[in-house]
Amino acid sequence: MNTICAISTPPGIGGIAVIRVSGPDAIDACDYIFFPFQSSHYLNTRPTHTLTFGKIVNPETHEVIDEVVVSLFRAPHSFTGEDVVEISCHGSIFIQQELLHVLTRCCDVRMAEPGEFTRRAFANGRMDLSQAEAVADLISSQNAAAHRLAFSQMKGSISNKLDLLHDQLLQLSSLLELELDFSEEDVEFADRSQLLSIAQQIDDEVVRLSDTFRTGQAIRNGIPVAIIGETNVGKSTLLNHLLGDERAIVSDVHGTTRDVIEDTIILDGQSVRFIDTAGIRNTNDQIENLGIERTYQRLERAQVVLWLIDGTRLADDAKVEQCVSDTLYVYRCIEPYIHDQRLILVINKVDLVDSDQLSLHLSYLLDLLSQTIQDPSLSLNYVTISAKHEMGFSELRKALTKATRLPQAQGDVILTNKRHYEAMQMAHEALQHVLSGLLTQISGDLIAEDLRMVIDSLNSVLGRSITSEETLNNIFKNFCIGK
Amino acid sequence: MNTICAISTPPGIGGIAVIRVSGPDAIDACDYIFFPFQSSHYLNTRPTHTLTFGKIVNPETHEVIDEVVVSLFRAPHSFTGEDVVEISCHGSIFIQQELLHVLTRCCDVRMAEPGEFTRRAFANGRMDLSQAEAVADLISSQNAAAHRLAFSQMKGSISNKLDLLHDQLLQLSSLLELELDFSEEDVEFADRSQLLSIAQQIDDEVVRLSDTFRTGQAIRNGIPVAIIGETNVGKSTLLNHLLGDERAIVSDVHGTTRDVIEDTIILDGQSVRFIDTAGIRNTNDQIENLGIERTYQRLERAQVVLWLIDGTRLADDAKVEQCVSDTLYVYRCIEPYIHDQRLILVINKVDLVDSDQLSLHLSYLLDLLSQTIQDPSLSLNYVTISAKHEMGFSELRKALTKATRLPQAQGDVILTNKRHYEAMQMAHEALQHVLSGLLTQISGDLIAEDLRMVIDSLNSVLGRSITSEETLNNIFKNFCIGK
Repeated sequence: MNTICAISTPPGIGGIAVIRVSGPDAIDACDYIFFPFQSSHYLNTRPTHTLTFGKIVNPETHEVIDEVVVSLFRAPHSFTGEDVVEISCHGSIFIQQELLHVLTRCCDVRMAEPGEFTRRAFANGRMDLSQAEAVADLISSQNAAAHRLAFSQMKGSISNKLDLLHDQLLQLSSLLELELDFSEEDVEFADRSQLLSIAQQIDDEVVRLSDTFRTGQAIRNGIPVAIIGETNVGKSTLLNHLLGDERAIVSDVHGTTRDVIEDTIILDGQSVRFIDTAGIRNTNDQIENLGIERTYQRLERAQVVLWLIDGTRLADDAKVEQCVSDTLYVYRCIEPYIHDQRLILVINKVDLVDSDQLSLHLSYLLDLLSQTIQDPSLSLNYVTISAKHEMGFSELRKALTKATRLPQAQGDVILTNKRHYEAMQMAHEALQHVLSGLLTQISGDLIAEDLRMVIDSLNSVLGRSITSEETLNNIFKNFCIGK
Repeated sequence: MNTICAISTPPGIGGIAVIRVSGPDAIDACDYIFFPFQSSHYLNTRPTHTLTFGKIVNPETHEVIDEVVVSLFRAPHSFTGEDVVEISCHGSIFIQQELLHVLTRCCDVRMAEPGEFTRRAFANGRMDLSQAEAVADLISSQNAAAHRLAFSQMKGSISNKLDLLHDQLLQLSSLLELELDFSEEDVEFADRSQLLSIAQQIDDEVVRLSDTFRTGQAIRNGIPVAIIGETNVGKSTLLNHLLGDERAIVSDVHGTTRDVIEDTIILDGQSVRFIDTAGIRNTNDQIENLGIERTYQRLERAQVVLWLIDGTRLADDAKVEQCVSDTLYVYRCIEPYIHDQRLILVINKVDLVDSDQLSLHLSYLLDLLSQTIQDPSLSLNYVTISAKHEMGFSELRKALTKATRLPQAQGDVILTNKRHYEAMQMAHEALQHVLSGLLTQISGDLIAEDLRMVIDSLNSVLGRSITSEETLNNIFKNFCIGK
């Protein structure tokens, strides 16, 4: 059975749901169960890109399952490139299931595998593999930055970039051939400086692309932010208020489930992902120290560290020395684990303290801290807040937005896909061989072989070289059903 | 703003999602953000019932939000009777939300209230109120019986039935007028036997319709089945296995959430809802007795009682007497709470016992029980199973299916909606006044007033009399957004 069907709309109950049918028998299959209200309007007779009202009847029981609107896309003017029928029905679970049942039981249609519609679009040349992969990214993107990236990839940004590299590789290849022709005539090795320069250019570009992957990951998965501080300093209050605000906004979006947003907020169109940490304090409790040890390790993954300090202790003449010494202790603890992170000192509970007293002691603390911080790549800022009353939150958000801003990648292309990244790494490795081969006057034959590896690596991203069934299965199994 | 929009597909992430826009400005609003791939294909120029490919651009940022397919339904040939545009986009949460944002921010379109599309369909005379209400029922129906009922109501089964009653009421009304004409001439009261007969017919039909409500509720909410028995007799094992099987089937349906199916299975197209009960045993423990007391109360709501008995005790010569006496004890406990329920004795753990021994003792138990059961409306059956090994389950299912079969309502119309039921009750009350008025020779004027109340009650079901804003709000607030 070569015609497939699936529910393409999100799972669950809604006003309407859409069942998609694609393949050579899509139109005939649907005509078997679809009865248009205008009897002349059988799908077989309808032009492409039309909508037809009618009812779906179960051929076994002769019961009407639903009244529907059917969209018709004739090949090749459809998403898959095949004949496609989309049945828009009432969004009850029962109707959706019954429609799938009659299609698969009575109509010689089978259930689609995850991503099979997109896989067919790829197989039918409607898009290359990087574009197909971007479709899944587009669907799962939850913020403006990730959406923008996936959309541009779907429109071929990676494809275009790799096409340019491909052209340069072909140029390099033909220059090498030329050299090989000469070498057959037993001439000295040609001047390879031009070849070297082209190869180096290509490699630079490949490395630059590889380097965008870290940014791409942060855009896709959220920029990691750690909240640290001693116990009872208000970490969870802060987090709850930050998330709570956001939740109110995000709850506009149906189906944003708790576990998706649990520790993620969207700032300036980018996801920020909070990393939970245990409270840090000087203790001999071995178990507590284990928790703190884990906190340190998590710090390494963070791009930003929100470092909470209890303002009531800092502002208190009797406690300030202990507070400062504790703070410096925390710094010495985390120092080995932070490198180019941005530190934001968050002085909490400032609603409870005298502000003059606080700013005096704060300057003192900041002085000591900046003397202590050795690593010039670390940046230190501070904000004063009351987590409980959400005071100072707009400053905090601004500081966070600034600190989580991603480096602007030059050009538009940012890699987000691990498979693409690995292909780039392979291309880079092979290019290193090409470069050293060119430098060490190795024979052009051998260099040409490495060059083919580079080309193959790039082609694999686009699915232009022969792509193994296993690779394709791996790619599409992560798609949702119905896409 | 009179043009509305909403996500019409189920909430969440999917291959595609559909945003519906309805109202006088629907086409212009969408043309402002929609750029067709064929530049001549602006929606304004497109005929009704066509599909157009293009992209949606945010007019503020000029960023492309998505590439979409747009369905166009021109008034009055749409669900609402207004111009309707349905935008089929990639089903990411971000895209769905962005589309709503640009529509509401830049296009003079506002978010639809729950059920507002259907409410407009009603307001524009595309359906009466009972049909509109059936749309919500259709969408939420999860089994064949509930679906069938909602679908027939949406197609006007209640409307047709009430139209017939309405005709009869008009006939009655004009006969009364005739009598009033006579009475002005001071003639004796006319022979009212014909009027009485018609009024009685109408009332019979109204009562019959009211009586279908109980069945309707069972179809909508599931037929209540209680599982009772002493502790440790295998109640939860049985329930888990019954539900587990079903869960495997139901899990085919995306979005069937746990709490919906937790204690419901679908048998023969009908929902069966299991009622949890505490184990019943003879005890002096006051707290335990409280739990048992609650079990008794729940029994009253059940249509079927699955009564589990430990087969290993029943088959054991040493324990049979105690087992039989305990069983009779349980019966005496539940007797006050059961009336026309169907009892199914379920002898569990039969894999562990000698079957000859068991059937001997079982006959003995059944004899004693049937002597004890006084109420002739109770029916008693038995099955033997092993819950643990799912032995005897097909017999059990058969017995359950038979016991949960709903009385076939005469005719097709079954009330499922409390509002309709209450209107029928009011009609019935007013008809009682009409009938007693006709019998007691009360003046036709007064009877005519009661008759108008009957007509009003029936009209309120269809929304044909003036329906208060409050009633409409109450009806449509329970709809999903986007329908």
